[in-house]
Amino acid sequence: SARVPRRTRALERTCAMSTGRRVCKVPKGTRDFLPEQMAIRQRVFALVTSVFERHGAVTIETPVFELKETLLGQYGEESKLIYDIADQGGELLSLRYDLTVPFARFLATHGIVSLKRYQLGRVYRRDQPAIARGRFREFYQCDFDIAGQHPPMVPDAEVLRVLIEVLDEFAALSPYHRQRLGSYQVKLSHRGLLDAILQLCGVPKELLRPICSSIDKLDKEPWDVVRKEMIDVKGLTAPCADRIGQFVTRAGKPRELLRELQADHSLCCGKFGAEEALADLERLFSYLEAMGNVLERCTLNLALARGLDYYTGLIFEAVLTDGSTPLGSIGAGGRYDRLVEDFAGKPVPCVGTSIGIERIFSLMEEAERELAQATGRVIRASKTQVLVVGIGKVDLVQRLKLCDELWRAHLAAECLYAERPKMARQLQYALERGIPVLAILGEDELAAGVVGLKRLSTQEQIQMQRGPPLVQAIRDWLASESNQ
Amino acid sequence: SARVPRRTRALERTCAMSTGRRVCKVPKGTRDFLPEQMAIRQRVFALVTSVFERHGAVTIETPVFELKETLLGQYGEESKLIYDIADQGGELLSLRYDLTVPFARFLATHGIVSLKRYQLGRVYRRDQPAIARGRFREFYQCDFDIAGQHPPMVPDAEVLRVLIEVLDEFAALSPYHRQRLGSYQVKLSHRGLLDAILQLCGVPKELLRPICSSIDKLDKEPWDVVRKEMIDVKGLTAPCADRIGQFVTRAGKPRELLRELQADHSLCCGKFGAEEALADLERLFSYLEAMGNVLERCTLNLALARGLDYYTGLIFEAVLTDGSTPLGSIGAGGRYDRLVEDFAGKPVPCVGTSIGIERIFSLMEEAERELAQATGRVIRASKTQVLVVGIGKVDLVQRLKLCDELWRAHLAAECLYAERPKMARQLQYALERGIPVLAILGEDELAAGVVGLKRLSTQEQIQMQRGPPLVQAIRDWLASESNQ
Repeated sequence: SARVPRRTRALERTCAMSTGRRVCKVPKGTRDFLPEQMAIRQRVFALVTSVFERHGAVTIETPVFELKETLLGQYGEESKLIYDIADQGGELLSLRYDLTVPFARFLATHGIVSLKRYQLGRVYRRDQPAIARGRFREFYQCDFDIAGQHPPMVPDAEVLRVLIEVLDEFAALSPYHRQRLGSYQVKLSHRGLLDAILQLCGVPKELLRPICSSIDKLDKEPWDVVRKEMIDVKGLTAPCADRIGQFVTRAGKPRELLRELQADHSLCCGKFGAEEALADLERLFSYLEAMGNVLERCTLNLALARGLDYYTGLIFEAVLTDGSTPLGSIGAGGRYDRLVEDFAGKPVPCVGTSIGIERIFSLMEEAERELAQATGRVIRASKTQVLVVGIGKVDLVQRLKLCDELWRAHLAAECLYAERPKMARQLQYALERGIPVLAILGEDELAAGVVGLKRLSTQEQIQMQRGPPLVQAIRDWLASESNQ
Repeated sequence: SARVPRRTRALERTCAMSTGRRVCKVPKGTRDFLPEQMAIRQRVFALVTSVFERHGAVTIETPVFELKETLLGQYGEESKLIYDIADQGGELLSLRYDLTVPFARFLATHGIVSLKRYQLGRVYRRDQPAIARGRFREFYQCDFDIAGQHPPMVPDAEVLRVLIEVLDEFAALSPYHRQRLGSYQVKLSHRGLLDAILQLCGVPKELLRPICSSIDKLDKEPWDVVRKEMIDVKGLTAPCADRIGQFVTRAGKPRELLRELQADHSLCCGKFGAEEALADLERLFSYLEAMGNVLERCTLNLALARGLDYYTGLIFEAVLTDGSTPLGSIGAGGRYDRLVEDFAGKPVPCVGTSIGIERIFSLMEEAERELAQATGRVIRASKTQVLVVGIGKVDLVQRLKLCDELWRAHLAAECLYAERPKMARQLQYALERGIPVLAILGEDELAAGVVGLKRLSTQEQIQMQRGPPLVQAIRDWLASESNQ
């Protein structure tokens, strides 16, 4: 039919002609996750989720694709990286690019005006993959957002506290984790303050966004290079750029820099809203101090401008460091008060953070492997608690019956599928997978209605009556294993 | 550019011209999930996952799209329902249609020859949605599969046991759950047996699959209609169809029907492999009896043929009933020994089941709502354990400080963001969300370094010193709440 694109027809012909095997690779920029990696990923997700839930957040789910119209014009230049679904008749669809725009669409669709929600989900960007640097075309985002009309800066403070709490929880897992995730800094800035500064320096309104994106390069380029771009490319005068330079190269302890800015009469002249933005920051700092003084982890940094157009107030970025050198972003976010209004009639102010979950995952993977090596334990992919082992003439059916007893007691049990596997093979199976308990069945045990239990970590061995005593003995061992 | 399709350009024009709001709906056949629904869905996923893990299964993840070539020719007529990604340069991609073909591709990609894995993930079918009947274009599949060379029918038996265990666990949750999920039947059949029967009845080889798909209609159509289709559409002779009819209308208790078939000399003539298939079934039945006699939940039903081409041995389907009338499928699967070989050099036999998780979810949702109504509890979307309540002149910063204390103790705590909210509003917030404990701060409590604790289920009220005593008192209450 006319609907089938030329390339598809060619592919169909190739497949039909080919007598050999199909290729078996994943699409460029995507990954399979193996069982051991999944075990680590699930721990990462569980930890992040537990912090989000500790703050009362609920979760939602939105489709993996949205109407193309929903995403159009939200991402500026990055829009070219959006994956479209083929036009096979019906609606025009695109894979989601982040979780923020779908969240705003969700609030509008359901007329929700107040919500503290988290969401873990995969997003899609048709970018040039850089596997070594962790840039993929399909990756997870992990967002925590607070929507609703609230007293100024209170939800902003809780969002920052959540980001910091997540990072600190990972660092607390072991020295191996602390080494990789313990050293970070949260840079704070404010779109309102930046806009006021730029206008006071004489930047015309239509150049506010372009100049912001120049400023945003200050984490990679020195001021001289950025200044040159402002003058040569964006068309500012040199004195104007120099005035900007006096502000945006400033970064320091939040309270200190705030005091300096408040004392600066050129800023606080009643124009462009600098006072309001500074008052916002002052409120934010008080709340951050109240919430366990997480302000200590922050710096105020006027070089932070953030790329996305939709931010309207506080903006922030958490950067891993090795003490001094920055090692890249591990979380970011800000306030976006007009995005929901773009979909619905009602204005629903929002603030949120996205956790750099893929980055955390790869650092976790390194730390977990080192930790496993240091403790001589395996990284477990399965949760099996008991391996039912047969010796002598005990056959598969007898072992399956014992498995059944354990499953009914909600214990995780397995046995090898072979009719009468060798003891060495069964033991090796348990050791490779880190299964903590062996339940051993020989002919004598069968005749006496008992089971031999062996705990691999301590080499203890006992014999228990089948039924409740057996189950209880296993539960006791497992409880003391997990306390170790 | 030439790459942008005509319809996209038209849409961009419309959006650019429009001064109004964006539409804010989800694509046809997809859904958002609200927080309360998500809470129920997470319980469903947790229960299914716990059964899978109890059987030693590990999990994996594969990309949401595959190379188009991977999916081509796997789904017969249903291939037209596959979503393609737009050709934006680069590879041709399609959204996954199920989790089975990606699993086979995964095994081949990584050269894995033995794996017991589960996978929960969304799949995509460009079908006509039937929301009322629960048919969506984006929905979850929930699969448990065992890959590897094993003694015959042992993994097949465990897969069936897992399916039955999942269904029984849901039914055991409450009488409301039992009413909806307690009554089901697992129909068993065997592709090898069906093929042997058809060949013995005189069906030519090239008609085996077409006749199978006629047989598959027997759950909806009477034999007369199916017989007519075999003769008029598929071209069988009437005597041949009648011979088939004598077999495929047979269903009954597994052991009984198996004995009848084994005694049938027309079947057991050493041709077409019927004896081998019957021996398979006999082995399967012994294992199912050993595993807690789950054979009791099964029938042998020769009318079950299953649509997909890739099955090679055991096939099965779990059907909900209201005692007698079938109410639709709630899980299905079978053995597919040649799918992995299709990708890789090595043959890796597999057997697996897919749980009808979306169906279970909607039944769970009904049951949970009835249960909540009967017990007078709310369905909780958040996991908040403590609401920090201020009275009198206690302000937000004081409440945030107490929240911080609780968060540090890993308790889930919230407070209202208002500066000094009314007591009635704070209480209502807790009651609507089912938050079990209030931590009350007045000026007196602040001065004395204590907190008033109120347990809403029992109306108990106590006062505790801040710090460890407070945390311990809350933990004790929460533990006894969850034991209720």
